[in-house]
Amino acid sequence: MSEPRGNAVRSEPSARAAQLDAADELAGLRKRFVLDDAVYLDGNSLGALPADVPARIDDVVRRQWGELRIRSWEESGWWTAPERIGDRIAPLVGAAPGQIVVGDSTSVNVFKALVGAVRLAGDGRDEIVVDATTFPTDGYIAASAARLTGCELRPVEPAEVPGALGPRTAAVLLNHVDYRTGRLHDLPSLTAAIHDAGALAVWDLCHSAGALPVGLDAHGVDLAVGCTYKYLNGGPGSPAYLYVAAAHQDRFDSPLPGWNSHAEPFGMSPTYAPAPGALRGRVGTPDILSMLALEAALDVWDGVSVDSVRAKSLALTDFFLDCVSQYVPEGRVESLTPPAHADRGSQVALRCADAGTVMKSLIEQGVIGDFRHPDVLRFGFTPLYVGFADVERAARVLGRTLGG
Amino acid sequence: MSEPRGNAVRSEPSARAAQLDAADELAGLRKRFVLDDAVYLDGNSLGALPADVPARIDDVVRRQWGELRIRSWEESGWWTAPERIGDRIAPLVGAAPGQIVVGDSTSVNVFKALVGAVRLAGDGRDEIVVDATTFPTDGYIAASAARLTGCELRPVEPAEVPGALGPRTAAVLLNHVDYRTGRLHDLPSLTAAIHDAGALAVWDLCHSAGALPVGLDAHGVDLAVGCTYKYLNGGPGSPAYLYVAAAHQDRFDSPLPGWNSHAEPFGMSPTYAPAPGALRGRVGTPDILSMLALEAALDVWDGVSVDSVRAKSLALTDFFLDCVSQYVPEGRVESLTPPAHADRGSQVALRCADAGTVMKSLIEQGVIGDFRHPDVLRFGFTPLYVGFADVERAARVLGRTLGG
Repeated sequence: MSEPRGNAVRSEPSARAAQLDAADELAGLRKRFVLDDAVYLDGNSLGALPADVPARIDDVVRRQWGELRIRSWEESGWWTAPERIGDRIAPLVGAAPGQIVVGDSTSVNVFKALVGAVRLAGDGRDEIVVDATTFPTDGYIAASAARLTGCELRPVEPAEVPGALGPRTAAVLLNHVDYRTGRLHDLPSLTAAIHDAGALAVWDLCHSAGALPVGLDAHGVDLAVGCTYKYLNGGPGSPAYLYVAAAHQDRFDSPLPGWNSHAEPFGMSPTYAPAPGALRGRVGTPDILSMLALEAALDVWDGVSVDSVRAKSLALTDFFLDCVSQYVPEGRVESLTPPAHADRGSQVALRCADAGTVMKSLIEQGVIGDFRHPDVLRFGFTPLYVGFADVERAARVLGRTLGG
Repeated sequence: MSEPRGNAVRSEPSARAAQLDAADELAGLRKRFVLDDAVYLDGNSLGALPADVPARIDDVVRRQWGELRIRSWEESGWWTAPERIGDRIAPLVGAAPGQIVVGDSTSVNVFKALVGAVRLAGDGRDEIVVDATTFPTDGYIAASAARLTGCELRPVEPAEVPGALGPRTAAVLLNHVDYRTGRLHDLPSLTAAIHDAGALAVWDLCHSAGALPVGLDAHGVDLAVGCTYKYLNGGPGSPAYLYVAAAHQDRFDSPLPGWNSHAEPFGMSPTYAPAPGALRGRVGTPDILSMLALEAALDVWDGVSVDSVRAKSLALTDFFLDCVSQYVPEGRVESLTPPAHADRGSQVALRCADAGTVMKSLIEQGVIGDFRHPDVLRFGFTPLYVGFADVERAARVLGRTLGG
């Protein structure tokens, strides 16, 4: 049906997409990525390749490794990469410099953070509370951290956390954004409730960093971890990071005190003495190729405001939900993603009985999202490179696939 | 002085070098590496760049990540890389397939191996014995593993290990080759002594894998770890590996049970159930760029016999020690490396009062070794790309630098 001119809200989705794209202040960033004709809505699993990364990695491999070899540990800044790149991530998650080190996987960093938090919490606190809806690895690692520190593990729905805290609670591990539903949890109020109970708050930022403001320092988060291959576009399996709030650093006691976290790593002392600051979150020799690919990928963020990214992210998910309601037959899908902006990350999850088959068909038609067992279609919206025309096309193809 | 013709042993070092290079069956491998005019004797710290790696990494970045993106987890074999590459390392350390996974740093793998070993050892065994001369990170991590499992840590010189074992010993962590002196420890007899005491043997192969036969299966080693950036030439900070002997795999209980080690990683179950086999040594998402650089680097080993590598390694270090005794003024250096072949790895360590200054000068003259605090000149000999003329030149430059 034809819509009245000048009323963007009621115009055809394709016309609205064109208007929204024309007004998008981040639209120019798309050309900084390698993209093709597909609509890539899986950046919440693996971010697209930033265009400058291949040449940088080639230089790291051919010149830094091939020619300078061992000298690159100093001359190419390899040795200090974990803290240098941590300081590049810091402004994206609201952290002052000197609190983040990059390295190891998210799982390994969850382990460091949780054991470290239990030790910081001190005697008499022997319970770890974990998000019952967490991405599984966090729960598995939390169980191991609890077992090794003599704590009890309590899985609790995030909304129930404040009521579940008590004098035994040492640490609480929560996801900022739920990997399955895309629900954004209330980091400021949950952190405050955890502190009121005398416990430490450990946040997993995998699905929020690079998509929305986090405010680690402002909200007094104690420890945090995150991956870098989703909204930070660091590449497949790029190293994760660990945030240790400045106030805790002198007492942070890592369960993985490798030589890279030693105060004098080349002193080769048989006795361990931790380095000051966030450095004590380091473990072994950093994986330089993956780490420097991440560093190159972060250049895209220069001059980009996380608030602008958040505004566009919400506009993208709003528009997608609108388009879905217009294109998809009633009752064919159910959104698991909260309608309120305050509760929404940067993805939309749609429950759909035949989700596995549907996603396969979408991918064949050039709309790349992913399927999460058993019945979830997951679409991630990376504001740096997804546009509104992409969103309209994705919803249109989905509607057609579902018989609309 | 002139030497009798036909007596290679007594000929001039440069003539002997030419003879030895001419007879070197591995000499052809040198062209598979990117090398320059320098003599690179630091491959025991960072292996040289294999010539085929840059193009492979470029393909991984541009095509696998840039074009296939998320599809590469299946289509480019990313997901199975840790165990596939583990099986490439296996023959180099005498392991049958299915016992090695690649990933994480050596330090993290030491932690998995030691905590796993203590759990395998069972009740009543609450002592971890660690090589008192170990590379420091192994000792630091062993202390953490002991603390978290309620064990006592006992540092013991490797030669004293058999007499130090008792009914409380759960696990013993030893280095196959000492990082400082280049001493090769007797893996078969020490492993047998550890087993006689009912404990588990955990070996660190960082300085032996790729330089000499290890024989993990043949000697019944329980667990082992190693890095891949020394004699395996995997690149700066390339991922380490964990060996879990087949006999222990069903009971191996990792302290880092990340989702990659789950029996059904995409089942997203909140309950952990370990995968069968060596897979349970995996943790989080593997760092694909570093890992696939390693995979490309391992191609150099196709058709290469570790026994030939060992024979050349001993010939190189023998020749270096001969040249040093000829070129370097008496008493100016003292070899810390054992003269007996059975006790020698693939490096020569020379004690020298002003070692720091001397190494700086050697490097300026194109002879790249390294300095280990406080007084050690360390020279590593990678048989795949170091030749005998290199060795002669290195000793000659050293002799000149030391006033010979």
